Amino acid sequence: MSLPVSIQDYRRTQQARIDEALERLSPPESEYPLTIHRAMRYSLFAGGKRIRPILCLEAAASVADSSPGVEVPACALEMIHTYSLIHDDLPALDNDDYRRGRPSCHKAFGEAIAILAGDALLTRAFQVVAEGTGVPAARQVGVVRELAQAAGTVNGMIGGQVADLEAEGKPVEEEHLHYIHRAKTAALIRAAVRVGGIYAGASEEQLEALSRYGGRIGLAFQIVDDVLDVVESTEGLGKTAGKDAAQKKATFPALYGVERSRRMAQQAEMEALAALEIFGERARRLRELAALIVERSA
Amino acid sequence: MSLPVSIQDYRRTQQARIDEALERLSPPESEYPLTIHRAMRYSLFAGGKRIRPILCLEAAASVADSSPGVEVPACALEMIHTYSLIHDDLPALDNDDYRRGRPSCHKAFGEAIAILAGDALLTRAFQVVAEGTGVPAARQVGVVRELAQAAGTVNGMIGGQVADLEAEGKPVEEEHLHYIHRAKTAALIRAAVRVGGIYAGASEEQLEALSRYGGRIGLAFQIVDDVLDVVESTEGLGKTAGKDAAQKKATFPALYGVERSRRMAQQAEMEALAALEIFGERARRLRELAALIVERSA
Repeated sequence: MSLPVSIQDYRRTQQARIDEALERLSPPESEYPLTIHRAMRYSLFAGGKRIRPILCLEAAASVADSSPGVEVPACALEMIHTYSLIHDDLPALDNDDYRRGRPSCHKAFGEAIAILAGDALLTRAFQVVAEGTGVPAARQVGVVRELAQAAGTVNGMIGGQVADLEAEGKPVEEEHLHYIHRAKTAALIRAAVRVGGIYAGASEEQLEALSRYGGRIGLAFQIVDDVLDVVESTEGLGKTAGKDAAQKKATFPALYGVERSRRMAQQAEMEALAALEIFGERARRLRELAALIVERSA
Repeated sequence: MSLPVSIQDYRRTQQARIDEALERLSPPESEYPLTIHRAMRYSLFAGGKRIRPILCLEAAASVADSSPGVEVPACALEMIHTYSLIHDDLPALDNDDYRRGRPSCHKAFGEAIAILAGDALLTRAFQVVAEGTGVPAARQVGVVRELAQAAGTVNGMIGGQVADLEAEGKPVEEEHLHYIHRAKTAALIRAAVRVGGIYAGASEEQLEALSRYGGRIGLAFQIVDDVLDVVESTEGLGKTAGKDAAQKKATFPALYGVERSRRMAQQAEMEALAALEIFGERARRLRELAALIVERSA
């Protein structure tokens, strides 16, 4: 009998699996023009926790025993996430000089290259999915559709970013706050889970359950992020702490306070776990990941 | 017997067909968040000539009598082209305040929204292709792959833009100039023709011929663009004239002079026409479009 693998060991294994696939799916630094490929890799390999790709792998595993090539859509999610961080950090947007404890992309490579590196990672995400093999084309199309919707303007990441910019400095309204969080962060996390399901050939019922799970942990993730910005130090976060309050951002702690925000995150976690019932033991890792997301300290 | 439709009338009809489809495929200005959808439409409906979409429609028509839904990939090409113009105009890149005779997107909406509107149009391009119906999924995947490669960093549009930025102020080298033009402009024009072919189910031989045609007119297009920047007024161009020389850009006139550049464009046109031979009369419009591109005055 084999010993159960701890969630920490499991996570390290999956991170390594994603890093290896990202390495394979990114143009090498020696590819012309060198600068853009260096900038893409600088941000892609900056020590990200690979939460979205791991959720994608695990959602696929909850549906099918094996999904050859599922690392490809998982990496596409990380490319889209990384592009969004690069563009969010630009002077015209959040103007953040640090990201994961290092100079942000535009501080390291200049604004022009940072804008183009973001564009390139977004483009590359769709390219790797379309160049992938091993599943019926209809599933590839489903993955492209899912990624584009989650990254887009209508209830997607860009829509959330615009709403966030427009809310700065104004009194926080509940409805607006929920839109921002659902669109800016939860949409891509929900998509991560759905993409894994679609790629693995989930039934409608399974996809519906995964969507509910993904939407709830996406919400919990953003609440925890907001809370950490209030209670953690810049050193612990690897990015500038207290920026939300300084920029008068619409956040959960700003509207509900820290304690109530924490309870809301736990509530969202409970609802996420409830949605996984139909998968039984197969969803053990998805349950552990939900707990990790809510209980993380940074 | 019906009278033959002139190329001018044909072009107006096709422009209207594309404008109508773009209207349908773009989120309305009343969709939340309003600003981003206004900015996307501001740049999308700025009087573009729709050259890439028209090439796409016509390439499809050279292969099949009818290709239902071919306006969708045609519009995706225009969205990608428009995104590239918005980002190119940004202060950190070409810093151009005017585009098609109007304030560029960042002058009208601010830098943050312009960056996000570019991101949104790129994302939307892939979304509309993936949401399209009417062709086998394998063709949709082929279109996504083609678009992403042409827009990407390896011999694609972003690669060309980076090479262009890096060449500014340096002596123009022949090899570098050809890379810039092939990647920055010709790649997407070639893709426009290939996408039409792929969508319509072109054979390998047909796709090969379309690729040669597209690559050659793409080159001709950029040479003519370079020449117009030298010989035309700002008023005639609708954008700032003489900028290439002012920014010491790598251009064909800078390396070969205006007259030799014009002959090179004509030579490329001849090669493009030769590639169309296998299509016979079906490619009449593609031939006329090649002539229009080389002989346009602005």
